[in-house]
Amino acid sequence: MEVWIYGARPVEELLRRRPRQVRELLLARQDQTGRRLEATAAQQRIPARRCRPAEIAERTRTPSHQGVAARAPLPEYLDWDGLRGRWRGLTVARLLVLDCIQDPQNLGALLRVADGAGALAVILPQDRSAGLSPAVLSASAGAGEWVPVTRVVNLRRALEKLKQEGFWIVAADPGGERDYREAAYAEKTALVIGSEGTGIRPLVLRACDLRVRIPLRGQVKSLNAAAAAGIILFEMAGQAAGTPKAAPSPSSLPSG
Amino acid sequence: MEVWIYGARPVEELLRRRPRQVRELLLARQDQTGRRLEATAAQQRIPARRCRPAEIAERTRTPSHQGVAARAPLPEYLDWDGLRGRWRGLTVARLLVLDCIQDPQNLGALLRVADGAGALAVILPQDRSAGLSPAVLSASAGAGEWVPVTRVVNLRRALEKLKQEGFWIVAADPGGERDYREAAYAEKTALVIGSEGTGIRPLVLRACDLRVRIPLRGQVKSLNAAAAAGIILFEMAGQAAGTPKAAPSPSSLPSG
Repeated sequence: MEVWIYGARPVEELLRRRPRQVRELLLARQDQTGRRLEATAAQQRIPARRCRPAEIAERTRTPSHQGVAARAPLPEYLDWDGLRGRWRGLTVARLLVLDCIQDPQNLGALLRVADGAGALAVILPQDRSAGLSPAVLSASAGAGEWVPVTRVVNLRRALEKLKQEGFWIVAADPGGERDYREAAYAEKTALVIGSEGTGIRPLVLRACDLRVRIPLRGQVKSLNAAAAAGIILFEMAGQAAGTPKAAPSPSSLPSG
Repeated sequence: MEVWIYGARPVEELLRRRPRQVRELLLARQDQTGRRLEATAAQQRIPARRCRPAEIAERTRTPSHQGVAARAPLPEYLDWDGLRGRWRGLTVARLLVLDCIQDPQNLGALLRVADGAGALAVILPQDRSAGLSPAVLSASAGAGEWVPVTRVVNLRRALEKLKQEGFWIVAADPGGERDYREAAYAEKTALVIGSEGTGIRPLVLRACDLRVRIPLRGQVKSLNAAAAAGIILFEMAGQAAGTPKAAPSPSSLPSG
């Protein structure tokens, strides 16, 4: 099924990732970005047409189109075999597992941090979860074109299968027993993030090997799902990269 | 000036933080949250009234009201003297400085991570920046009630004044010379975050003592401003707390 994918960066990444699947490009901006997209379309022999913003708003059904829209199918989901292929031959592998994230904005933001932190794929349940959509791609700033997404029928069973593949399952949970900075993450780790309203479901939580908490120092006792995922995924990535850690420096005062 | 502050958590934090300033509460939900808010209002002698969702949508001019709205003034900005009072007597102090964040969603998300990471205050320029608004409070999940915000006329000059107060100024910059995990942050540190489109302005960047980068491992070469701020602020907080760091563990495989 074809949809209208909108937004400057989402369309830019779409043209970079799978130009052959783009049927048509609509442009309502004259600036550098508009000209660059037009040139790319010409190169790829994609029909491009200038139009008024109102036409793009009508096609995309949102005012957040930034003057760019492309007609194309949504990215395909990755099946389980394809997912397993992602870590074949790799020593270090990180996955992001999302338990019932329903808000497209949140899902998009999560795909973006997953991409930035080098996660190999995102796994989500087929039901009670947002799925790939133009709104999600837009919120992901195009990262949804690059991070493969796998949908599973039963998330708990998927975690068991990941364990059999050698993965260590870590849950981000406010009641977690370990500070996320104190955990030594295994080379193959899957991080589970719950929905903002209700957190990780009990049955899914029970399938996890370790629950880590982010110590909050403020008045509002929760973080946005994407912020929490970013903080933990980058801690994992930093550990895996073996970044030499600066020691706490109680007296390192500025020189300038 | 009074506005309609909306959303369950924003209104909950408003009632907790400054109940005396709330003139009126509108409720269009019957659940536990609705009853809890109603009880709080009764306790605080705030006029509360049940109504239809459409009335709240009309007052707040958004469909994202979650069936709750309260009429109250916006939180007051903190002036410079008040800001200085925030770190008086403290050894460790962290500030978040925002260079021209224009999107209310982003500003709200930034206030939320600032609160979570224990930042003492957020500093932003008076012009070319979003300011406190119901949309920002909503996106902050109520954190905007708690993290004080200071507006300054000239951001570069404000950074110079912070240096005189003993602060070390760190810029989050994709071209930064140091990996953010390799920096040893001073006890008094201000983190500067730029806008998503254009980053930190050159004159502001020049006033910074150090530029740190977050190494990105994906295809999309930038993070959302709030994700970037969260990743660096929590690294600072972790260092300040002296969290014992787990060494990179190339062979720590799951036991279960």
